[in-house]
Amino acid sequence: MIEVKKKMMKIIHNVFEMQKEANAMRRAGKRIGFVPTMGYFHEGHLSLMRIARSRVDMVIVSHFVNPIQFAPTEDLDAYPRDFERDCQMAESDSADIMFAPDRKEIYPDGFRTYAEVEEWGRKLCGRTRPMHFRGVTTIVLKLFHIVQPDVSVFGWKDAQQFLILRRMVKDLDLPIEMIGGEIVREKDGLAMSSRNIYLAPEERAEATVLSMSLAKVHRMIEEQGILDSKTLINYITGEIDKTRHGRTEYVEIVSQETLDPISGVEKGKTLIALAARFGKARLIDNLRY
Amino acid sequence: MIEVKKKMMKIIHNVFEMQKEANAMRRAGKRIGFVPTMGYFHEGHLSLMRIARSRVDMVIVSHFVNPIQFAPTEDLDAYPRDFERDCQMAESDSADIMFAPDRKEIYPDGFRTYAEVEEWGRKLCGRTRPMHFRGVTTIVLKLFHIVQPDVSVFGWKDAQQFLILRRMVKDLDLPIEMIGGEIVREKDGLAMSSRNIYLAPEERAEATVLSMSLAKVHRMIEEQGILDSKTLINYITGEIDKTRHGRTEYVEIVSQETLDPISGVEKGKTLIALAARFGKARLIDNLRY
Repeated sequence: MIEVKKKMMKIIHNVFEMQKEANAMRRAGKRIGFVPTMGYFHEGHLSLMRIARSRVDMVIVSHFVNPIQFAPTEDLDAYPRDFERDCQMAESDSADIMFAPDRKEIYPDGFRTYAEVEEWGRKLCGRTRPMHFRGVTTIVLKLFHIVQPDVSVFGWKDAQQFLILRRMVKDLDLPIEMIGGEIVREKDGLAMSSRNIYLAPEERAEATVLSMSLAKVHRMIEEQGILDSKTLINYITGEIDKTRHGRTEYVEIVSQETLDPISGVEKGKTLIALAARFGKARLIDNLRY
Repeated sequence: MIEVKKKMMKIIHNVFEMQKEANAMRRAGKRIGFVPTMGYFHEGHLSLMRIARSRVDMVIVSHFVNPIQFAPTEDLDAYPRDFERDCQMAESDSADIMFAPDRKEIYPDGFRTYAEVEEWGRKLCGRTRPMHFRGVTTIVLKLFHIVQPDVSVFGWKDAQQFLILRRMVKDLDLPIEMIGGEIVREKDGLAMSSRNIYLAPEERAEATVLSMSLAKVHRMIEEQGILDSKTLINYITGEIDKTRHGRTEYVEIVSQETLDPISGVEKGKTLIALAARFGKARLIDNLRY
């Protein structure tokens, strides 16, 4: 009989215990890779864990639906959850530790300290979600202090989030390498998102307009040399507006360095970002060029 | 001939180099103690270095006049400086490393990330210096990331600053032990401060009213059992107002837990804090009870 010894993933709920564990790893000379998540995993999350795995000795995944990045009107309570399935997926893939703290431990009574990347959090998605990014930077900073990673991996799907967090890491001198993982898509192009389950079948079918119009814009730039932001934005907005259920929230072409709008696409510096609603679902997608 | 080999203090100006040095110390199992300062040392600073010395293997002192904690109307450019004297004082005392970064390196173009302990920074001194504590929390957080201390020592002279920073450390899960060093005073009671050099001789003589009225209040509480905040505040304000040059900015009795005013002194929980102007100098002092 051959016994295959499978390494078990450790699940930690307590902040102090996680910090102690991370400390012990660092003292043992291990490099730590960190993937912060809100759970309800899909292939996008797993791809980030695999990127971490390829870079470090120990992969820590956090699993925490962060209340302070949701507005009172948003979907905090409805946010999809399946902790057991997530643990299985993370373990069978690449994670060594799943850190799943309680809300009370992360935000005890009297909590009042926030980290903010000024102005950038009010652009793009921040215009309709003004407190969102302050919530994101605060929780990620806390998690960085708890997990003490050498490397942290985030999805480019949330491009503004990644650029803001990378700015925070630089501005606050955090000794962490920030890595962006490419967007993982369904076969028909829809960017994977835990929120896609909110889509009714007809909305789901129409939502492909986002990735399709971005792909088309990519060809317009590459093949036709169309660089004018207005032209490209109007094309995408027009395509979304043609659907029955889609409602454009924004389509913007901005500099990756400043998040400010630019009048024309500049190779290597451009982010074409959009948000749209399909029924209950607010979807985002983007193209870096 | 007996050669006395004196350990030399290292001076580091570069953020990356400081971070590398701190990393190497930690990997070697050394415990790091950290004393952040704005320089122009007096006995108060040295006492903090000695506290650090007694607790850890390596003492790092930072020396940086932090522009973002000064309002445009304040004394940033006039703030007293004497780097060479400071180095001698720190070395002859307890410091192993003096970290003295350039402004440009700490706040490069595009810097836009701030840490803030909400509300607490608008109380007491924050009412006349609304951006001050946001500047303090941001620089200290940056320095913590650069120096990676196990222990950090601050003076109780800046009581609000210490309470805010301690709150930040707790809220952001920083694995740092925060220690407050007692106020060091001149022979006549005036709390030591780099800003005392702004005082003209007559102002300097009168400024003892601050420590003397706090000492008197301590006796009123202990010996006469007077606990009513209003009575104690009125006494101090009255004493300051009797001087020729003193102008009360505030005298407040607050909870050390919340920084909110309390109507009566509660043993072990109380902070009696004041700020007053004497000519160009803005002086602060306090009594914890």
